[in-house]
Amino acid sequence: MSEIPYKIYLSENEIPSAWYNVRADMKNKPAPLLNPGTGEPLKAEDLYPFFCEELSNQEMNNTDAYIDIPGEVLDFYKMYRPSPLVRAYCLEKALDTPAHIYYKFEGNNTSGSHKLNSAIAQAYYAKKQGLKGVTTETGAGQWGTALSMATAYFGLDCQVYMVKVSYEQKPFRREVMRTYGATVTPSPSMTTNVGRKINEEFPGTDGSLGCAISEAVEAATSQEGYRYVLGSVLNQVLLHQSVIGLETKAALDKVGVKADMIIGCAGGGSNLGGLISPFVGEMLRGENQYEIIAVEPASCPSLTRGSFVYDFCDTGRVCPLAKMYTLGSNFMPAPNHAGGLRYHGMSTIISQLYDEGYVKATSVKQTDVFAAAEQFARVEGILPAPESSHAIKVAIDEALKCKETGEAKNIVFGLTGTGYFDLVAYQKYNDGVMDDYIPTDEDIAKSLSQCPKIG
Amino acid sequence: MSEIPYKIYLSENEIPSAWYNVRADMKNKPAPLLNPGTGEPLKAEDLYPFFCEELSNQEMNNTDAYIDIPGEVLDFYKMYRPSPLVRAYCLEKALDTPAHIYYKFEGNNTSGSHKLNSAIAQAYYAKKQGLKGVTTETGAGQWGTALSMATAYFGLDCQVYMVKVSYEQKPFRREVMRTYGATVTPSPSMTTNVGRKINEEFPGTDGSLGCAISEAVEAATSQEGYRYVLGSVLNQVLLHQSVIGLETKAALDKVGVKADMIIGCAGGGSNLGGLISPFVGEMLRGENQYEIIAVEPASCPSLTRGSFVYDFCDTGRVCPLAKMYTLGSNFMPAPNHAGGLRYHGMSTIISQLYDEGYVKATSVKQTDVFAAAEQFARVEGILPAPESSHAIKVAIDEALKCKETGEAKNIVFGLTGTGYFDLVAYQKYNDGVMDDYIPTDEDIAKSLSQCPKIG
Repeated sequence: MSEIPYKIYLSENEIPSAWYNVRADMKNKPAPLLNPGTGEPLKAEDLYPFFCEELSNQEMNNTDAYIDIPGEVLDFYKMYRPSPLVRAYCLEKALDTPAHIYYKFEGNNTSGSHKLNSAIAQAYYAKKQGLKGVTTETGAGQWGTALSMATAYFGLDCQVYMVKVSYEQKPFRREVMRTYGATVTPSPSMTTNVGRKINEEFPGTDGSLGCAISEAVEAATSQEGYRYVLGSVLNQVLLHQSVIGLETKAALDKVGVKADMIIGCAGGGSNLGGLISPFVGEMLRGENQYEIIAVEPASCPSLTRGSFVYDFCDTGRVCPLAKMYTLGSNFMPAPNHAGGLRYHGMSTIISQLYDEGYVKATSVKQTDVFAAAEQFARVEGILPAPESSHAIKVAIDEALKCKETGEAKNIVFGLTGTGYFDLVAYQKYNDGVMDDYIPTDEDIAKSLSQCPKIG
Repeated sequence: MSEIPYKIYLSENEIPSAWYNVRADMKNKPAPLLNPGTGEPLKAEDLYPFFCEELSNQEMNNTDAYIDIPGEVLDFYKMYRPSPLVRAYCLEKALDTPAHIYYKFEGNNTSGSHKLNSAIAQAYYAKKQGLKGVTTETGAGQWGTALSMATAYFGLDCQVYMVKVSYEQKPFRREVMRTYGATVTPSPSMTTNVGRKINEEFPGTDGSLGCAISEAVEAATSQEGYRYVLGSVLNQVLLHQSVIGLETKAALDKVGVKADMIIGCAGGGSNLGGLISPFVGEMLRGENQYEIIAVEPASCPSLTRGSFVYDFCDTGRVCPLAKMYTLGSNFMPAPNHAGGLRYHGMSTIISQLYDEGYVKATSVKQTDVFAAAEQFARVEGILPAPESSHAIKVAIDEALKCKETGEAKNIVFGLTGTGYFDLVAYQKYNDGVMDDYIPTDEDIAKSLSQCPKIG
C-alpha cells in the first residue's frame, strides 16, 4: 500500500484565505460584457441594479490576483470544507491501470454539489449590502438548494424560479429548498411580466433555464432591496469556485504529487474554472504545464461545436452580451439528464482559455457517461451526479489509455456532486431505456445564426 | 473562537483496528437467543444455516473485548471513514447556549447512514466463506442500500426484499440498490412460500418489515450458497457499529474533551449501541460516568412503554426468540416517517443496559422532531434523516436546559444519516399536514399479550 491515504484532507486552517482570480494572470483578458441595447462595454456600476455592488466589482476585476475570503464566509466553509481529495485506489484496481487517479469531491454537503462555494459568498455580500433578499433561477435544483442554504444561514429572503418541468419532476429538490425557507415558483409563472408573456405565447410550456433567468432578473429589479444572483458562467462565480482548485493544489503538494492531467465537466464553467484556476495560473505564468480537459455532453457541445462570438446569456435577451463559445441563445438542448450541463454558452474565462489552447475539450454521450457513473459508484462507493460523471467517463478513458502505454500519469478530476436527486435518470439507465441525443450541424447552425452580429 | 475546529477528523491510521465488544465488560450478559420451537438456548452452530459462520460466532461471543477488523474491511472503511466529529458552533450560537454540542456524522457515504459499517463487514465474511450471495429485507431502504454497496464491492449477489409500500413510495432508494447491482423484490412477493401465504391471507397488503424478514430468511435457506444478513438489533451489528463510538471517543480525547451526555436515536439499537459502547464500557468498568439517552419515537416506544420479555424478532415467527424490550411482535407502529425506528423490539444489549440503568430513554413526537430537524438543517447545513433528528431534538432540549442552568455541558449526539430520501416527510411537515401518532395503552397491552410466555 502506498503512503498516500485514500482521502487527503487539509486541516481547517489550510482552507485558502483568499480566492484566486485567474484573470489577473491572463495576458488576453476575457472580452467585456456588452450592454444588450447599446452594444457598449459595461462598467461595474452598470451592474449595480442587478448584482450586489461587491459582486459587480468582482465581476469586472481583471487585475487583482487574490481577493480575501471574508471571515464569515470562511466560517461557513468550515462546516463542509476542506473537501477531500480522494485517491481512487479502488477504481485504479478495477481498471488495472498504472495511472494514479485522484478526485476532488465537492458533494459532501446538503446542496450535493460545489454550488455552495459561491452561494455563501453571494449571500454574504447581499447581507453586507443590507439587502432583504435575492432572486435566482434553478434548473436541476442544485444551485437553488445551495442558495437557499446560504440565505437561511444569513437570514435573507430567497426567491427561486425553478424551470417548470423540474419543479414537477423533482419535487424533492423543491422540498429541500422549502425546508431551508426559500420560496420556489415554477417558471414560467404568472408573477412576472416576462413569465406572463411567455405563458401567453407558449401555453403549457415546460419552461427553460433561459426563461427562468429572465423572470428572476425581473423579480430582483422590481422589488426594493433585492438583487439577482447566478450560480455559474459569471467571472465572480469562477472566482469563488477557485477554492476547489486551491485546495486541490494544496492537497497534491502535501503528498508531493504533480498532476499531469486535470479533467472537469463543463456546463457554464464554474466548477471547471474553479478546479483548474491555480493550475492554469501556473501555465499562464510559464511555471508549469498541465493537460486540462473540459468535458461536455454531446447533446450540448458549446466548446466543441459552438462558435466564439458575442451572444445573449439568456433566452429572454435581457441580460448582457458575453463573448463566449455558444450554440446560440435559442439553442434548445435535448432533454438529457445532466441538467447542470444544458446551457447554451460557456464562461468567458473558459472560452478565452480554450481559444488560446490552455484548455482542451471533448464531448461524451449520455449512455457512456452513465456506464462510467455506475462503474465508479460500485467501486468508489459514491453515487455521482450525472454532470460529474462526464469527468469520470473521460478520467476512466485516460486511465485505460495509460494501461496501454504503461504510463503512470497522475489524473485529477473534479467530482462535483452526488446523484441522490437524479435517480429518475439512473432508473432509465438501469431499465435500458436511456437515449443519446446529438444535435445535427443544421440545428446548431440555425441557432447560431440568431446570435447578434458584433465584432 | 475556540481552538477546537468545526470538524474533528482523525487521520486514516487512527481508524480503530478492532471492534469493541461491550458484552465482554457486562457483568450481566444479554439473555441468550432461544430456539422458537424448543425454547432451548441457541449455540453458534445453530445459527450457521442462517448466518455466516464467523458472524454467528460474533453473535454469541460474550467474552472477547476486542475483535480485529479484517484488513479488507478496513480498506473499505477508508473510503468513507473516519467520519467527522463536528462541533456544532452554529447550532450553539442559534440556541445561545453555554453547552458545547458535538455530533458524530455518519451520513457522508452514498448509503446515507451508519448502516454501511456493518454491511461491509457482513459482506466480507460472506465472501470469505465462499458464498454466492446474501439476502436481506429493507424498510426505508438505508440498510438495503448499504448492503448493495458492500456486496457490489466484493462481487456478491444481493437479494433485497423491500417492504411493498416503501418499494412503491421510495423508488429512488430502489434505484440506488439496482445501480449497485442488487435485485429488489417488493414484499410480500410471490417468490417465497411465506410471501405467497401472506398475499393469500391479506390480499393487497402493503407489507411490513417483519414479513420481509421472513421472506428474506426463507430465500437464504432455500438457495445453495446464500445466507441471511440483518442491519440492526443483532449483537454482531452493534459490534461492527462500535467503530462509531471508538472514533467519537478518540476524537474527543484528541481535543481533550470529556462528554457529559451522549444521545442517540434508538430503533433496533445499532447506531446507539455502536455510539455508546466505549463510553458504556468505561461505566461498566467503573472508570467514568456518562449520562446516556436513547431517543425513540412516541409512535414506537419499545424502551419507554414496552416490556422486558422474550419475544419473536419477526412477525412471521420464524426467527429466534430474544429477551428484549418489546411492544410485541404483532405491534403495528403507526406510519410515522422514521422508517428506521419502526421496529417492535430492541437490541438485547441495549435492553439489558437500559434495564440496569446504564442507559436512560425518552420518547419524542414526530412534529417536534421535524421542527428540530429544520432548525438544525438551517444552521448546520446538513439535512438530517428523520431517525437522526430524534437525537437532534433531545440534544437541543438539553442544550436549552443548560441555557437555564448556565451549565457548559459537553453534549454529544449521533447524526446517523441524511434525509435526502425522506423528502416526502419533509414536504408533509412543510405543508403543515404531519400528524403525531401515539399508541394507546390498550394497543400496547394487546400486542404484548401475544408474546410467548417464557421465563
